[in-house]
Amino acid sequence: MSEQMYRVALASRPTGAPTAENFSYEAAEIPTPGDGEVLVRVHYMSLDPYMRGRMDDGPSYAAPVPVGGTMEGGAVGEVIASNSPAFKPGDFAFGMFGWATHGCKPAEQLRKVNPQQAPITTSLGVLGMPGFTGWYGLTQLGKPKPGETLVVAAATGPVGSMVGQVAKLAGLRTVGVAGGADKCKLAVEKFGFDACLDHRAYDNARDLRAALKEAAPDGIDIYFENVGGKVLEAVIPLMNTHGRIPICGMISWYDAGGLGAGADAAMTVPSLWRNILVKHLAATGFIISNHYDLYPEFLSEVAPKVVSGEVAYVEDIAEGLENAPAAFMSMLKGGNFGKQIVKVI
Amino acid sequence: MSEQMYRVALASRPTGAPTAENFSYEAAEIPTPGDGEVLVRVHYMSLDPYMRGRMDDGPSYAAPVPVGGTMEGGAVGEVIASNSPAFKPGDFAFGMFGWATHGCKPAEQLRKVNPQQAPITTSLGVLGMPGFTGWYGLTQLGKPKPGETLVVAAATGPVGSMVGQVAKLAGLRTVGVAGGADKCKLAVEKFGFDACLDHRAYDNARDLRAALKEAAPDGIDIYFENVGGKVLEAVIPLMNTHGRIPICGMISWYDAGGLGAGADAAMTVPSLWRNILVKHLAATGFIISNHYDLYPEFLSEVAPKVVSGEVAYVEDIAEGLENAPAAFMSMLKGGNFGKQIVKVI
Repeated sequence: MSEQMYRVALASRPTGAPTAENFSYEAAEIPTPGDGEVLVRVHYMSLDPYMRGRMDDGPSYAAPVPVGGTMEGGAVGEVIASNSPAFKPGDFAFGMFGWATHGCKPAEQLRKVNPQQAPITTSLGVLGMPGFTGWYGLTQLGKPKPGETLVVAAATGPVGSMVGQVAKLAGLRTVGVAGGADKCKLAVEKFGFDACLDHRAYDNARDLRAALKEAAPDGIDIYFENVGGKVLEAVIPLMNTHGRIPICGMISWYDAGGLGAGADAAMTVPSLWRNILVKHLAATGFIISNHYDLYPEFLSEVAPKVVSGEVAYVEDIAEGLENAPAAFMSMLKGGNFGKQIVKVI
Repeated sequence: MSEQMYRVALASRPTGAPTAENFSYEAAEIPTPGDGEVLVRVHYMSLDPYMRGRMDDGPSYAAPVPVGGTMEGGAVGEVIASNSPAFKPGDFAFGMFGWATHGCKPAEQLRKVNPQQAPITTSLGVLGMPGFTGWYGLTQLGKPKPGETLVVAAATGPVGSMVGQVAKLAGLRTVGVAGGADKCKLAVEKFGFDACLDHRAYDNARDLRAALKEAAPDGIDIYFENVGGKVLEAVIPLMNTHGRIPICGMISWYDAGGLGAGADAAMTVPSLWRNILVKHLAATGFIISNHYDLYPEFLSEVAPKVVSGEVAYVEDIAEGLENAPAAFMSMLKGGNFGKQIVKVI
C-alpha cells in the first residue's frame, strides 16, 4: 500500500507538565499485516491520565514510551485487512494502537467491539478501561455496603462517574469532587451524586475538609483515590474506621515526587502513595482486639510449638510494680531484651 | 479486707516521651468482688508499646486513661476470691487488671490460664496479645508465600520474634531490624532470622536501605510494620509489586504527628500512617491491566445498564489526531468535560 498513515510521537520527555514541544506529528508508511495480524483504521482514540506516566523514564508499572516512539494508547476502529480467521474487514476492534490513524496487531491482542450493542466510543470509556477501573476498584477493593458514604474526585471523568453510579446503585451516599461549577452540576444531575464539591472553590485542604464534613456528615467509608494532593489531605482525617482506599491514580501528583528510592531518601506523602499505587501494595492497619475470634486458632497452632521449643521466646522481667514506670520508659527507647514483663508478687 | 493493694496511676499527660513525673505509685483498698466477679492477685504484668498511646487524649483506637486513673494493661495472676462458678481460688487468670497488684473483674472478661501447659508469663507475650498480634497480622494480612522475603523491626520483641518465626516456618527469607548488636545476635541465633540489621549503625534511611538491599537481594514482599520512621523510609522503595504491609504500630512515631485533622491540615507521612493504623484502613494500589479476568463480569453487569440509560456517560470528543497533544495537555489540567476521546477519522 502506498497510502500514508499518521502518528503522534514522543519528541522529548517533559519536565513537569508536558508542552507541545514534547510531541511530534509524523507521517509513516501503513504497515502490511503479517501472519495472524490484523490491520485497523482507527476511528476513535482514547486519552487517559496514565499516559502522562509513560512519558517519563522513571520506574513505574509499565515501560516508558521511548523518545521517538509512538505515544501509547487504546483506540477503536474498523478492520481493513486481516490475516486471522478471528477478524474480517468491516469488523470493529479495540486495541493498543497508540496515537495513530492505523494500527497493526496480532488478532489475540484485539477485542472485538459490537457496534450494534452500544456506540463504539463506549469501548474507550464507560465500557472500556476507565469504566472497568472504576467498577473493579469499587466492587473488589472498596467493597461497598448500603448506607455507607463514598468520596471520589474527578467525579465527571470516566472513572469517577462509574464509581459514583455503581456506588449509588449499591445504596451508598455519594460525594463527588470536581473542578468547576459546571462539572459539579453534571455530577449531581447526570451521574446522581448526592453532593459535589468544586475543589477550586477551596484554597486549601482544611477548607475543603470542612465542606466535605458537611457533605459527608457520617464520615467517609470509601475514598476512591485517583487524584492525591489536596483532596487526599482533606479526606484522610474524615475516614471512618475500617474504611477502604482503592488507589488507581494520583493525577495531581503526576508531575511531583518519585518513589523515594534515589539518592534523596526522603519519604514524602506523594512518594509513599506512589509506591503503594505502582507496586499494587496493600497497606492495612489492624487493631488486634477486633480479631479475638481467631485467638483459639492461634493458640492451637502456636502453643504446641512453644512447648516443643520450635517457637522460641525471650522475656525481660523487671521486679516490683513500683518499677513499672522505669521499665516502661526504658522499653519505649528499646532498652528491653525480649518481651517486657513486670513481676508484681 | 483491710489489706492494701498498690497501683500505678497516670499523674499527668506526657509531652513527647513520658517521664517519671507522669506516673504515681499509690496505695488503695483491695476491692470486694461483686456478683459474678473474680478477685485476682497479680503475679506478672505486661508492658506494651500501645500503652504510650493511652497516655494521650488525642483520638486513637481506644479511650485514653483518665488523669488519676490506673494505667491500663494486661496481667496474669491467681484467683483469691470468686463469686463466679467459672473460677475458683487457686486458678490462674489473664485480665486487663491494669498496673496494679490486685484486680477485680467480671468472670466473662477473664481468660483462664493453664500453668501446666506453659509458664504463666507466656500468656502476656508469646502466647498472649503480642504473639497473637504477630501471628494474626502475618498470616491474615501478610499472606506469606514460600520463597518470599519478609522484613520486621523490633525483631527480638514479642511481636517481631513471632512474625519472624512464623514466616520462617512458612518458608520465607526473614530479615530483622533491631537496636544493637546483642539484639541482632539474638534475632539470628534464637529466632532464626536469616539476617538482622542494627538500625543504630545507620545514620539515615538511605544507608539503612543500602544494607537492607544486600540482606534482601530479591526485594521485600512483606513489611510487617510496627515502628515507622527510618525503617519505613528505608523499606518502602524496596517493596516488590503486590507486596503487603500489615500495620500494627509505629513506635518510633508515638511521640510525633497527629491525625492531621486539627487546625493544621498538613498531611505528613506519620499522619497518613497513623490514620491507616488507628482506623484500620486498607489502602490498596491496583493496576487494572492485571485484572482483566473480571472484564467479562463487568461487561455483563454494566453494558445492559449503559444501553438502558441506568448508567450515564458523557464524552468529550476532540477532532483530528493532530489535535491529540493539545487535548491531552488540557485534560491533565481538568479541561475535559467527561471522557476525553479523539476522533481520528
